[in-house]
Amino acid sequence: MPVKPIQSDSSNMAGSAVNPSQAAALLAAPVAAELRAVAARFDSELESDLPNVNTLCRQVARFRGKMLRPTLLLLCAKAVAPDRAITDDQIALAAVVEMVHMSTLVHDDVLDEAELRRKGATINHLRGNEAAVLLGDYLISHSYHLCSGIDIPPPLPAQWAARLIAATTNKLCEGELLQVHNRTNLGLDERTYYEIVRRKTGALTAASCELGARFAGADEETGRAMYRYGELIGMAFQVQDDVLDLAGDQREVGKTLGIDAEKQKLTLPLIHFLKTAPGEHRELLKSLLRGGDPNRAERVRQLVLPSGSLQHARREARRLTAEAAACLDVLPESEARAILGAVCDFVVARAV
Amino acid sequence: MPVKPIQSDSSNMAGSAVNPSQAAALLAAPVAAELRAVAARFDSELESDLPNVNTLCRQVARFRGKMLRPTLLLLCAKAVAPDRAITDDQIALAAVVEMVHMSTLVHDDVLDEAELRRKGATINHLRGNEAAVLLGDYLISHSYHLCSGIDIPPPLPAQWAARLIAATTNKLCEGELLQVHNRTNLGLDERTYYEIVRRKTGALTAASCELGARFAGADEETGRAMYRYGELIGMAFQVQDDVLDLAGDQREVGKTLGIDAEKQKLTLPLIHFLKTAPGEHRELLKSLLRGGDPNRAERVRQLVLPSGSLQHARREARRLTAEAAACLDVLPESEARAILGAVCDFVVARAV
Repeated sequence: MPVKPIQSDSSNMAGSAVNPSQAAALLAAPVAAELRAVAARFDSELESDLPNVNTLCRQVARFRGKMLRPTLLLLCAKAVAPDRAITDDQIALAAVVEMVHMSTLVHDDVLDEAELRRKGATINHLRGNEAAVLLGDYLISHSYHLCSGIDIPPPLPAQWAARLIAATTNKLCEGELLQVHNRTNLGLDERTYYEIVRRKTGALTAASCELGARFAGADEETGRAMYRYGELIGMAFQVQDDVLDLAGDQREVGKTLGIDAEKQKLTLPLIHFLKTAPGEHRELLKSLLRGGDPNRAERVRQLVLPSGSLQHARREARRLTAEAAACLDVLPESEARAILGAVCDFVVARAV
Repeated sequence: MPVKPIQSDSSNMAGSAVNPSQAAALLAAPVAAELRAVAARFDSELESDLPNVNTLCRQVARFRGKMLRPTLLLLCAKAVAPDRAITDDQIALAAVVEMVHMSTLVHDDVLDEAELRRKGATINHLRGNEAAVLLGDYLISHSYHLCSGIDIPPPLPAQWAARLIAATTNKLCEGELLQVHNRTNLGLDERTYYEIVRRKTGALTAASCELGARFAGADEETGRAMYRYGELIGMAFQVQDDVLDLAGDQREVGKTLGIDAEKQKLTLPLIHFLKTAPGEHRELLKSLLRGGDPNRAERVRQLVLPSGSLQHARREARRLTAEAAACLDVLPESEARAILGAVCDFVVARAV
């Protein structure tokens, strides 16, 4: 049962592209009821006998997103076993991956707040920082707690899910550390860029897909294919973020340009430009990245857009999603499989 | 085989008390070889294929302590099965509890650095802060990773250790959050104080002891007794910290006084004083705690020392360790059991 592709013209520019909220809703439609159960499981796991802890947990609400990782997990489960209902354990696992994701967002917020504070520290900011460290710790602790209470179906090893989740958070930390380490490195190469992205973004989407598949009875080979699918989707998502950082709606760019003043975080188009552009263009970009020009975002944009570096990044995103789509060949035809295919198109078509 | 008590006169003041390094070495002597294996397992678990991650992990060294929790775990294992050698899985578990402990120290460091930064922010401080958040996350992630790779001996449930560790980190977070929540609450009562201490300090020593006992074959009842022993030891340790904060060597007090200007963290003697002292004395203490008197530490000391509140806290520490010692009755006579008994004396006798 084929599903109408959400947007297959991945060469489109901002304006003609998909609305991400509508797209997310469309992708999640076949698992909408299950996602409500995931949200409920998420909330019940975080409940404490201490009222002040519950008050703090309500702050998590502001990080609530589109639940992409639970959606992928549930779709992979449905794609492996289209006729089988989602189990309580799969709901719990979907809550686990969302909890892990949110803990990284909350701790990222600490790091970002640190940036803000360089310009003017206030006690309120610091109190918020402290709460964010503790809230992130609380989330990650509960993700392991929930995960280690789930029965593992044979033939999977006794602690398979908990071990996979912990191996995944190891990678998330490594990716983050590698990124921080290379923050001001204008010589960052594509290999290292992909190492960062694979661990920081790819690892959790990969684990989500493999968990969904194997808890639905997939064999090891299918599990590996779904892991790879999720890894590639996560990586492509990040590359597309980099593309939009440069070529997205201009009102957005000023706010979100990845090479922000403090972080000098290189995006894929810039890495390519610094390697392939004529010498004087490279030097100009370097001095823009290092300097404090208030119009920097716009000047970088004007310098890089006419080059082939944006197209290179777009091609890379499509290369990753094409490989991801091929991973789905191991699955039987189903609505869920078709939607996983549509996710590939959505990732490179989205404009925000 | 009785062991000479390290120091049983718990009414002594600073100066006549035990040297904590010597005492720790004495307590750890029967498991010294195993503790070296724990340190090696700790290091090998943290190793990454990324050189910059390994460089950062070397910073963990500055948090290395006396490995109290691994020592308790191993002593409990020996006390339950005096004639059985410590297994590789017990070594790994001992590394897990130390890793959990260190992650809390590293994140506490973030919170403490936040305090420092109120007086003068520098980029170096903030960079250090960021690294500390990520390093703490890396440690907790690897503690779960190591833990979920350990085979669980029957009749324990399949994921017993991982579930216990996660439940423990849930409690650690709750204790920390409850403490932050009550930071400026001068009406903090003893019940809430003990709730904080039980979760923040007692939970991990409790889990360490229960893990050691049950992985050595202890039945559920013995496991529960050892959990309670560890919980009480951890709590008594904190109460004695509070006693030393007020009555310890004066050169130390200026540096470590728990009621520090920013945190207004109440210690047990102060909580008791604020409840039992004459009205005008209570008001004086409150204004000292709220105000910015540079001699505050000394003035608090002079106000509270003549009261019965210090004795109350000493009595509480002894009450907790007496109850801990009684928990050991379920164990057969052994050198390890005698040392666990000596730990009770050490906790209330230590001067630093």
